[in-house]
Amino acid sequence: MKTRHSIGIDVGGTNTDIGLVREDGKIIDKVNLHTNEYYDAELYVNDMAAKIKELLERNHVSDIDGIGIGAPNGNTYTGSIDKAPNLNFKGQVKLAEMMKKHINTKVVVSNDANAAAYGEMIYGGAKDLDHFITFTLGTGVGSGIIIDRKLVLGSTSTAGELGHSIIIINGRQCGCGRKGCLETYTSAGGIRRTALELMEQNPLYNGVLRQVAPENLTSKMVGDAANAGDPIGLQTFENVGYLLGIAMANAVTFSAPQAIFLMGGPVHAGEVLMKPLRKSFDEHLLNIYQGTVEIRVSSLADNEVAILGAAALCQL
Amino acid sequence: MKTRHSIGIDVGGTNTDIGLVREDGKIIDKVNLHTNEYYDAELYVNDMAAKIKELLERNHVSDIDGIGIGAPNGNTYTGSIDKAPNLNFKGQVKLAEMMKKHINTKVVVSNDANAAAYGEMIYGGAKDLDHFITFTLGTGVGSGIIIDRKLVLGSTSTAGELGHSIIIINGRQCGCGRKGCLETYTSAGGIRRTALELMEQNPLYNGVLRQVAPENLTSKMVGDAANAGDPIGLQTFENVGYLLGIAMANAVTFSAPQAIFLMGGPVHAGEVLMKPLRKSFDEHLLNIYQGTVEIRVSSLADNEVAILGAAALCQL
Repeated sequence: MKTRHSIGIDVGGTNTDIGLVREDGKIIDKVNLHTNEYYDAELYVNDMAAKIKELLERNHVSDIDGIGIGAPNGNTYTGSIDKAPNLNFKGQVKLAEMMKKHINTKVVVSNDANAAAYGEMIYGGAKDLDHFITFTLGTGVGSGIIIDRKLVLGSTSTAGELGHSIIIINGRQCGCGRKGCLETYTSAGGIRRTALELMEQNPLYNGVLRQVAPENLTSKMVGDAANAGDPIGLQTFENVGYLLGIAMANAVTFSAPQAIFLMGGPVHAGEVLMKPLRKSFDEHLLNIYQGTVEIRVSSLADNEVAILGAAALCQL
Repeated sequence: MKTRHSIGIDVGGTNTDIGLVREDGKIIDKVNLHTNEYYDAELYVNDMAAKIKELLERNHVSDIDGIGIGAPNGNTYTGSIDKAPNLNFKGQVKLAEMMKKHINTKVVVSNDANAAAYGEMIYGGAKDLDHFITFTLGTGVGSGIIIDRKLVLGSTSTAGELGHSIIIINGRQCGCGRKGCLETYTSAGGIRRTALELMEQNPLYNGVLRQVAPENLTSKMVGDAANAGDPIGLQTFENVGYLLGIAMANAVTFSAPQAIFLMGGPVHAGEVLMKPLRKSFDEHLLNIYQGTVEIRVSSLADNEVAILGAAALCQL
């Protein structure tokens, strides 16, 4: 049988990465565009299509399953990007419709977190699972939900925003305008914020994180400090794991998944995050679900998940 | 075309209600068994089958879509009741399999909250909706989730336990062994508890609820007091509506439903509950969902929802 291929496109504010993906999840080639150089969506899609054709030609691939596009505010029902705040294109950009004029194939659009979940199912560690949820810890906290091997889109195509479930009533101010959203505690920025708060509460602490100017502190530094035994680093990840464990236990009461996958930079902190997370999850999981749900780290690489997730959408 | 019928069975700890339901949602006849008189599941199912036959004969119905059974810990995948704490039968009772030996038709088992949600779709106010969630306020808080017109069962058949999502970390002790579950605040017992707490905090309050011995206080009395303008009654429902609004806003981040339905006794308190609930929901709903979700009261009668929900399962 012929090897199948798909195109996966990751639309970011700065770069648009276009990958040619083999059916086994290998990205065999990729090209890129500078998203922020475009103010005209027609021109953007035109150049994107040219790059795809270039990619197919130079790899001698004549036939693809389709083109999947993961984008901020990507809407699967309309095939469009809707008012994405970090893109130059205003209003609704009907990507799928525009792309089909250039390349006559299946074109599927989704937001990046949903694409990541679907990528885990098609190319990653959830190939054999019917029910799972993914949490991506990054600038925000993204999530994607799979039930009966279907991506949950809801009535708006924007289901799966668990980063904006309220975990502490009247808690930290969130960028969304509300308070106490999960992502204010467990995103990269939330981790940074917790470390800074803990340092303020511990004036005698004089460890490695104190040597960094607050504005330069990153979640990566906090993770490295934790892994070197730094008390502020360790306590920060204790807190993050604790809250994430509760959020995950709450998510289980919704869809009773077989597994929850974690993705994103902060996950590389490893056991300093995973240990308190698993402990909190076990403590807060309703008894009827005990032993039915596994917490796992995504098997997709951080620098590949966006393209793979997008390519996976062709199987939607 | 011939009118279609289904049998809906509500298995409770005391009574088992068996209804003959017409396709338009009218319960045309019903009979009952005393669940607590049975210690032998074989005998119980035997008598249940005899009652069903009696019901069909006396109503001249020869053909049914099936038999739906709503039961505590009812499992749709195995067609069984699993270790229900308030039934005399121990372990797993394979209801569907046993019933089919008596009556050769489709037999579907589910828990009561999931059945209620499905009933809302087949017979109630959600006939035209693809995505919705129901919350039943009663002894506990039950919930059922419909996505793409399918009941969410998850990997265990026990998805949709939003009454046990943790709304306040380290909050009230719940019967499930954990703390801060939604149902400790918004079930009938939770409402009672809030009223008692508020009276303790307000020693000068000398209204109608103070005249009731604490052990006799019911959520119905609190609702009646609120509707008569009693300050403790009103404040109680303010609190309940506030927390329920947050829980509902959180549920929206999961499945982006078109509507959330409320069922159960406390809902009859009316606007003293619905007004603060809607206010809290609007305040806590993520901006992208604003205007896409309606909060509605179930259109199924409290005393019919169990049978109708069970009967609806025949369409699963």
